[in-house]
Amino acid sequence: MTPHLDSFFKQVDGLSESFIDRLRKAVAIPSISAQDEHRNDVVRMAQFLAAELKNLGAEVELRPLGKQPGKEHLDLPPVIIARYGNDTSKRTILVYGHYDVQPALKDDGWASDPFELTIDEKGRMYGRGSTDDKGPVLGWLNVIEAHQKAGVELPVNLLCCFEGMEEYGSEGLDEFIQAESKAFFKDADAVCISDNYWLGTKKPCLTYGLRGCNYYSVSVSGPGQDLHSGVFGGSAHEPMTDLVAILSKLVDSQGNILIPGIMDLVAPATEEERALYSGISYTVNNLHESLGSETGIHSTKEKILMARWRYPSLSIHGIEGAFSAPGAKTVIPAKAIGKFSIRTVPNMESEDVNRLVFNHIKAEFAKLDTKNKLDVWLQHDGKWWVANPKHWNFNAASKAVRQVFGVDPDMTREGGR
Amino acid sequence: MTPHLDSFFKQVDGLSESFIDRLRKAVAIPSISAQDEHRNDVVRMAQFLAAELKNLGAEVELRPLGKQPGKEHLDLPPVIIARYGNDTSKRTILVYGHYDVQPALKDDGWASDPFELTIDEKGRMYGRGSTDDKGPVLGWLNVIEAHQKAGVELPVNLLCCFEGMEEYGSEGLDEFIQAESKAFFKDADAVCISDNYWLGTKKPCLTYGLRGCNYYSVSVSGPGQDLHSGVFGGSAHEPMTDLVAILSKLVDSQGNILIPGIMDLVAPATEEERALYSGISYTVNNLHESLGSETGIHSTKEKILMARWRYPSLSIHGIEGAFSAPGAKTVIPAKAIGKFSIRTVPNMESEDVNRLVFNHIKAEFAKLDTKNKLDVWLQHDGKWWVANPKHWNFNAASKAVRQVFGVDPDMTREGGR
Ligand SMILES: [Zn+2]
Ligand SMILES: [Zn+2]
Ligand SMILES: [Zn+2]
Ligand SMILES: [Zn+2]
Repeated sequence: MTPHLDSFFKQVDGLSESFIDRLRKAVAIPSISAQDEHRNDVVRMAQFLAAELKNLGAEVELRPLGKQPGKEHLDLPPVIIARYGNDTSKRTILVYGHYDVQPALKDDGWASDPFELTIDEKGRMYGRGSTDDKGPVLGWLNVIEAHQKAGVELPVNLLCCFEGMEEYGSEGLDEFIQAESKAFFKDADAVCISDNYWLGTKKPCLTYGLRGCNYYSVSVSGPGQDLHSGVFGGSAHEPMTDLVAILSKLVDSQGNILIPGIMDLVAPATEEERALYSGISYTVNNLHESLGSETGIHSTKEKILMARWRYPSLSIHGIEGAFSAPGAKTVIPAKAIGKFSIRTVPNMESEDVNRLVFNHIKAEFAKLDTKNKLDVWLQHDGKWWVANPKHWNFNAASKAVRQVFGVDPDMTREGGR
Repeated sequence: MTPHLDSFFKQVDGLSESFIDRLRKAVAIPSISAQDEHRNDVVRMAQFLAAELKNLGAEVELRPLGKQPGKEHLDLPPVIIARYGNDTSKRTILVYGHYDVQPALKDDGWASDPFELTIDEKGRMYGRGSTDDKGPVLGWLNVIEAHQKAGVELPVNLLCCFEGMEEYGSEGLDEFIQAESKAFFKDADAVCISDNYWLGTKKPCLTYGLRGCNYYSVSVSGPGQDLHSGVFGGSAHEPMTDLVAILSKLVDSQGNILIPGIMDLVAPATEEERALYSGISYTVNNLHESLGSETGIHSTKEKILMARWRYPSLSIHGIEGAFSAPGAKTVIPAKAIGKFSIRTVPNMESEDVNRLVFNHIKAEFAKLDTKNKLDVWLQHDGKWWVANPKHWNFNAASKAVRQVFGVDPDMTREGGR
């Protein structure tokens, strides 16, 4: 099928020891973005990666992102941006990855030193960052190197964007990308995010969507201070009573959102979309395993996956200001703040969701006929994303998966970050 | 009206400096039961009180209560029991009080040293324990002394029970009283608890009832561990959703308990009882002042007081196991435990209340049609108490209040501890 790539694949196999060695060097740098004392290692990792890219002939820049918000004594690690290839007759693919890792201690349950790449008897490699996300990032360097050594021209121009703060909220990245979208990244025809996992253990997956999240607080307040339920119980409108009443009107036990109009915002599933689910390698048992229980709502793979990926959901996370410790305390909280969020999907616009949420809560609160005071506000929102899984970029990725793994990839979405 | 007491009252006035001096000595002993390092001071306070009682001719015993539960290196302070008078033709009154105090620091906002009795220009006395409860305890000593010096016989025999752990849960007292009810206390015809406050600032009050408390936990659990709402939202029955639904079925915003049958257990108010409320010195404004808000449910004094004293109430205190901090966390808690309590009144028996609560919650949970697991249990209960406000002991106390303060006392109950 791809005879012109035979020499390329031969190089990949031949270079595998050197690829593994590059991963070993990367894993050995504890580039933990969450820990101040490792900030130098994060920067060291950026320099390692930039040097490797330069060795391969890429144009590389380390771009500073300024001071870390809230920790002004610390510089944010740089974003590595790079370009490989300048042929205007080719498509240009922007590749994203991150070179920082989460903290890891042997005491956390690692069988080996997390910062030493360890290979077991089945050839499986262990090391912090080996899959998230140093391995996938180095994969792009390996691809370039193997093409060069095989004498096969890379069929696209590559743009790279590798950040060092992904595991700590991608501080500073949004603004940077926004600014470079019309500059360094302006040629990008498609984006490839190399930072994902497989749905099961048998097939790679290609992700074409992600739910958004609108996170709300709803507060009910009344008394000037917390009250003793012995002294005041029965004489005052209790904020917790009102808050619980409001929260009970948001979602039912089957996961149905009770806010009028919300479901009208949801794009209907087309036949073409529905067809994608049946082939996906997933079972009800997979859900039970990941839940650690048999308390799933839906009884078919298709319904489960659609509930997680393409329909909205509403979760109540907790209450701030009420008694939350073990034991017993006879307090009437003066103010209680409920926290809930809605996972959003096409075509729910944040402002429309907010309006429906606020109107519903205010209407339900009015029915309570209480003298307490209501406040409801959006804490933050993040928009959903969905791509066309038949786009040429996905077709190319599917072909690559078939070539290397011998199977069609699962076309997946994600439930939300 | 009471000419034979003229010489007694003259002694009270004449001894007032010496009474104040005794209070000054008592306040100066920092008998803080909650702080280990002050345990010696608590014991010192017991010895002071016992010596004063002996000086007055009472038979006094300091009874040990053993080690403090959970702090086995500490001895509990002794209970002081005493008898003054042995005349079988007289009634015997058992008097309760406590000689320990709560912690107090000048930094807490005291205008003067809390352990130094300070008298302001209006003659008001300030000092930790001066009202709670060293002053009232010493009042009994003063009464004995003034009778003696006036040559007037005390009309009753007195039994005393003064404890040193009231402000730290009255550790060990229940078992002690139970054991002595057939021994040292067996002659008691009535009990007088000298440890209360006035409802307002104008009239003393006599308390003839106290609500009880049944405290419940209701837990809903499902997943094997906390879940991420992005990944799982919409696919699993969420414990918080179910718990909030259950809690919303317990009480409405007007304070009405929604558990069928609960109100049938409540003794109806008689005309005689209703008549007691109209004379009580209390206003809707008093409620608003103590609430720190105008969020009271009822619009008349009578309804407010009856709601606080003689009707049950249900308060939702909080939720354990859910997200309770400020900020946002997109967690689906694996298990959430709601805490609520019912203030009980005559004739609610704890077992009947439990049965109705458990049945109602189980029935409401069944309606949810969820796969999650429900548990509901009683954390603890404490029984209500009510006395006949026309009992001779209350009549005697009322007469004494009229004599000294020139007003009828408020006949009050308490909402619960
Ligand atoms: Zn990652
Ligand atoms: Zn990660
Ligand atoms: Zn007290
Ligand atoms: Zn007290």
